[in-house]
Amino acid sequence: MSKLVIVGTVAFDAIETPFGKTDKILGGAATFIGLAASQFDIDAAAVSVVGGDFPQDYLNILQQKNINISGIEIVKEGKTFFWSGRYHNDMNTRDTITTELNTLADFNPVVPSAYKNADYVMLGNLHPLVQLSVLEQMENKPKLVVLDTMNFWMDNALEDLHDVIGKVDVITINDEEARQLTGQHSLVVAARKIHEMGPKYVVIKKGEHGALLFHDDNVFYAPALPLEEVFDPTGAGDTFAGGFIGFLAKTDDISFNNMKQAVIYGSTLASFCVEKFGTERMQQLSKNEIFKRLQEFKQLTQFDIELA
Amino acid sequence: MSKLVIVGTVAFDAIETPFGKTDKILGGAATFIGLAASQFDIDAAAVSVVGGDFPQDYLNILQQKNINISGIEIVKEGKTFFWSGRYHNDMNTRDTITTELNTLADFNPVVPSAYKNADYVMLGNLHPLVQLSVLEQMENKPKLVVLDTMNFWMDNALEDLHDVIGKVDVITINDEEARQLTGQHSLVVAARKIHEMGPKYVVIKKGEHGALLFHDDNVFYAPALPLEEVFDPTGAGDTFAGGFIGFLAKTDDISFNNMKQAVIYGSTLASFCVEKFGTERMQQLSKNEIFKRLQEFKQLTQFDIELA
Repeated sequence: MSKLVIVGTVAFDAIETPFGKTDKILGGAATFIGLAASQFDIDAAAVSVVGGDFPQDYLNILQQKNINISGIEIVKEGKTFFWSGRYHNDMNTRDTITTELNTLADFNPVVPSAYKNADYVMLGNLHPLVQLSVLEQMENKPKLVVLDTMNFWMDNALEDLHDVIGKVDVITINDEEARQLTGQHSLVVAARKIHEMGPKYVVIKKGEHGALLFHDDNVFYAPALPLEEVFDPTGAGDTFAGGFIGFLAKTDDISFNNMKQAVIYGSTLASFCVEKFGTERMQQLSKNEIFKRLQEFKQLTQFDIELA
Repeated sequence: MSKLVIVGTVAFDAIETPFGKTDKILGGAATFIGLAASQFDIDAAAVSVVGGDFPQDYLNILQQKNINISGIEIVKEGKTFFWSGRYHNDMNTRDTITTELNTLADFNPVVPSAYKNADYVMLGNLHPLVQLSVLEQMENKPKLVVLDTMNFWMDNALEDLHDVIGKVDVITINDEEARQLTGQHSLVVAARKIHEMGPKYVVIKKGEHGALLFHDDNVFYAPALPLEEVFDPTGAGDTFAGGFIGFLAKTDDISFNNMKQAVIYGSTLASFCVEKFGTERMQQLSKNEIFKRLQEFKQLTQFDIELA
């Protein structure tokens, strides 16, 4: 059974969308990644930090999904990372209302010793130095390291970000961030520039417009399932990443062809994530529902072509 | 051989993009639609109007592509419709600098008698009353009528627009226009509302993000080919529509399954159109180039899925 190390936030989110708002609920990159990856039969561990205010119930949720939480440090006297934001009507843009780093400010990730030989590593969105620290703790070179990041680190820690980008196999990044990172508008050119920075595989997430996978001269385009309603986009990108690496870890096959499937799995899981607030939908997702939606993806995109 | 009637502008365009600018060159919806549809072995006629200033050379271009031009009225004392615009750096938005209606202001379309029994009708973007007039001239109910329109008519002739929408089988419209027409943000919901207005098939064009085809509960998503460079987007939507209806007319099969292929053909032709200014690329396009790019589309989107 493949081992997967996931580093990222485990946090409180408070979310406001045109459909309603929540109090502080379970959130964080490692949480969403873990819940998505836990759909596959793998041995995953989350590496993170929370404060003494973090409910045991939330940790139980992760454990019940067979996510190893021995790498989640609990700083009793500290408070848990908290983010709150408000989505605009188009659901593609949002304002951050609050960001309280709290215990995250001094986070020193510790990979549990049983997972230092993991073949798969998911570096969720965090300070690049934290991501690097996790990589340095791995005993063997992992088979596949996937990096997620965001524009905040481009603005505030670009040099460190380049350091970590140079050490990973796959980067997942959204379209605007790919453009910012490379100064190129064309995503094809941007992906090539990112290849040159290190990652052999570049996944560009385009939200409701799907995701692109680049590898050398190969491109794969997975559309997003057109949805009646996006209820809450929070965690969709992390869920995509978790589904992507979870599928790869489970199948233990990192060929381009298999990565295409991984992108489809990631998109499928993300399409569920946005149906309810926070992690709610991901906690209740059944294998049957996933399989049905994978078939919908196939219907959505597959065609025969005759030359006319 | 299927007959296709195309109504739309035949015009002068002057285009400015980040890559350069043109003087007055050949443009117009019927021109782009015709050039795309002429890739298929069909009998197509353009219905339009130009002024005495319109070069015979431009008409020759259409004729050489086997487009019947007997329905293009030449108003000797009049001037040809002229549009000029400037694209922003993202190539997705543009400013109109000039719109001179000229002969288009009093355009009374006349469908050549040999084409009044055509099975396929493409209503290119024009005043809805002009589009309706073409429909009324058809002797038999065509097998398939495709309507293209834009936000301008929603702002200025909504009632007439609803009239023509109620009489067509397929509408092609971009995402923002679909939202404006229905007041719905979700494209799934918007498509359903447009179905209720009449069209059994709704094609929503999303530019670089591809196109969606809706029919009852079926959805098909054709991504756009990721391009290194979009040189000039002018005419891409019309080229898409021309490829779409040209393929359907050629194969004479209006099943949903065949429409998927038509969307792929439309996207493929549009991906060429944007490579050069105006109609330049479409004038020189070979069947071999098209076939090669269709294979790229297949590579881009096709996958096998295993349940993991």
